[in-house]
Amino acid sequence: MGNWEENVRKVVPYVPGEQPNKPGMIKLNTNENPYPPSPAVMKALGEIRADGLRRYPDPSSKILIDAIAESYGIDPNQVFVGVGSDDVLAMTFMTFFNSNRPVLFPDITYSFYDVWADLLRIPYEIQALDEQFCICKEDYKKKNGGVIFPNPNAPTGVLLELGDIEEIIQANRDVVVVIDEAYIDFGGESALPLIEKYDNLLVVQTFSKSRALAGMRIGCAFGQPMLIKYLNDVKYSFNSYTMDETALAIGAAAVRDKAYYKETVKKIVATREWVKKELREMGFVFEDSMSNFIFAAHTSVRAQYILEELRKNNIYVRHFHKPIRISNYLRITIGTDDEMKKFLKTLKNILEKR
Amino acid sequence: MGNWEENVRKVVPYVPGEQPNKPGMIKLNTNENPYPPSPAVMKALGEIRADGLRRYPDPSSKILIDAIAESYGIDPNQVFVGVGSDDVLAMTFMTFFNSNRPVLFPDITYSFYDVWADLLRIPYEIQALDEQFCICKEDYKKKNGGVIFPNPNAPTGVLLELGDIEEIIQANRDVVVVIDEAYIDFGGESALPLIEKYDNLLVVQTFSKSRALAGMRIGCAFGQPMLIKYLNDVKYSFNSYTMDETALAIGAAAVRDKAYYKETVKKIVATREWVKKELREMGFVFEDSMSNFIFAAHTSVRAQYILEELRKNNIYVRHFHKPIRISNYLRITIGTDDEMKKFLKTLKNILEKR
Repeated sequence: MGNWEENVRKVVPYVPGEQPNKPGMIKLNTNENPYPPSPAVMKALGEIRADGLRRYPDPSSKILIDAIAESYGIDPNQVFVGVGSDDVLAMTFMTFFNSNRPVLFPDITYSFYDVWADLLRIPYEIQALDEQFCICKEDYKKKNGGVIFPNPNAPTGVLLELGDIEEIIQANRDVVVVIDEAYIDFGGESALPLIEKYDNLLVVQTFSKSRALAGMRIGCAFGQPMLIKYLNDVKYSFNSYTMDETALAIGAAAVRDKAYYKETVKKIVATREWVKKELREMGFVFEDSMSNFIFAAHTSVRAQYILEELRKNNIYVRHFHKPIRISNYLRITIGTDDEMKKFLKTLKNILEKR
Repeated sequence: MGNWEENVRKVVPYVPGEQPNKPGMIKLNTNENPYPPSPAVMKALGEIRADGLRRYPDPSSKILIDAIAESYGIDPNQVFVGVGSDDVLAMTFMTFFNSNRPVLFPDITYSFYDVWADLLRIPYEIQALDEQFCICKEDYKKKNGGVIFPNPNAPTGVLLELGDIEEIIQANRDVVVVIDEAYIDFGGESALPLIEKYDNLLVVQTFSKSRALAGMRIGCAFGQPMLIKYLNDVKYSFNSYTMDETALAIGAAAVRDKAYYKETVKKIVATREWVKKELREMGFVFEDSMSNFIFAAHTSVRAQYILEELRKNNIYVRHFHKPIRISNYLRITIGTDDEMKKFLKTLKNILEKR
């Protein structure tokens, strides 16, 4: 055995969240959409022909990018697509965060940011959220190598107002500012219109949540053409053909069906607001969530205990051990009304048993 | 406008090969399989349910990895999968080529190797093929940071014997040696059995050629579990969910249908051998190809001229301007018998017109 291991890029292995697949389970742990994707998606899938699969897909992803551009009322050259927003974000870190100065992001945030930074040897500095889990905009006005945060933030669900976001962008014209809007469709105001004004703003979105297509791995980014070009230059040098034939067809069909998407989102928001009331009555505390999940702690019962008891009832929610100040919180995805009724009923039993 | 462009990772943009989509065209330019994928693939696609698309796919890609492992008679922990072999190779460069010493690969080879090296700031040193476009094994016995080459080589189609490959691996036990077997199924002997013997050998394959699934972006790598683990550690830190629901199902179905795959490959090989004879009779010269393409130069007519004339007849072949010593060669993918008859007839006309 030789010394080849010496030259291996060693990383602390990132462990993806659990993806249980049990019959009858209520899966509220990974913020998936409880409703199926648009019926147009299955129609598009049915139109795939064997002969289309043997050929390379269009590397420019034109049908998908055109559908997104049309749906959002922007130019196709303002749109980038990738294999889920994780791929888009990985490309973003690789393309734009090449400074010796640290990239800034919150202490409580999407758990992948520091993983990408570590993998790509990018310096970073975390900025603590305030007591209400809110991003302090002043923290992002120091010299840095880039700024990234989700809005609404994850796993807190807390939304930052667009005015505050614009202030952060204005204070950072020498770096790229990335707003990760995975959950924006559930009640927030998108920073998308700001791309016309700021050439250093990249807005990232995903088809995994509001479009109900987590299984298809489709993410996108919006920015001025120069920003998108830089992203594409790196992407084409990494993997030219990322989006497969089915993802292109399905993604385009999904984004074109605006009515279905709006209806689904409306249902999830209504369920969320109702669940919020129920949780408060049961003694949970949480900041107001504008996403498709609620990040809550019980005033007297430990999160870990609740998690385990729920699991015994085939109900899955998410728990983060780090950082310590969120270790008593559970992130609960909003399911269907029926799922949430069962969840709340089980939860009530668990709390009463204590 | 700020100075954000200063921190952009600038690369010479890689331009993917042309993907024309003209009615009635004969597409012999990107080494796609002229036959559709296994009927089992369309069956698997038909079984996809809308509800499966809203959930995240299995990040461990179990159904696909198990199918591959079973089909190749190896352990699932010896298999890695990615979004085409390009994704697998990009992850490979990122994971294993972290030395200050140069990675070695041929001067005439897959045009993406130097692109990845440049993108990831990996030093490399190209090794010239001999006059017969053959890899000189002695060139790969110097100190280096890793070795990679396709076998058969692309775009030459020339195969290196397994004994020579083993000699190269033996001389490089301190680095990872990657054999890129995109075209191995068309007549070469795979280095796969050697993974049992050498812990520093990674064998990369693709579903884009012999499995007729270029449109689905599926690639894989084989190696000892430790090598696969390192690759997965980086992959999970880059994008945990790369393989979408349809790619997993389709890939598994394709690899399980061995009979169909063997039959298709046999047909392509038979066509190739017949086309070789015809081309020689027309005055083309080429080294013997063991892939699904022929890399040929005409003794008196310029490649560029032939390419353009073929194009006027809606027939596409591939031409590489660099390096200069292959600038008079055309890479001709093997199509169906019918396509190749039309191609040869048109070619004859073009040559006679001169």
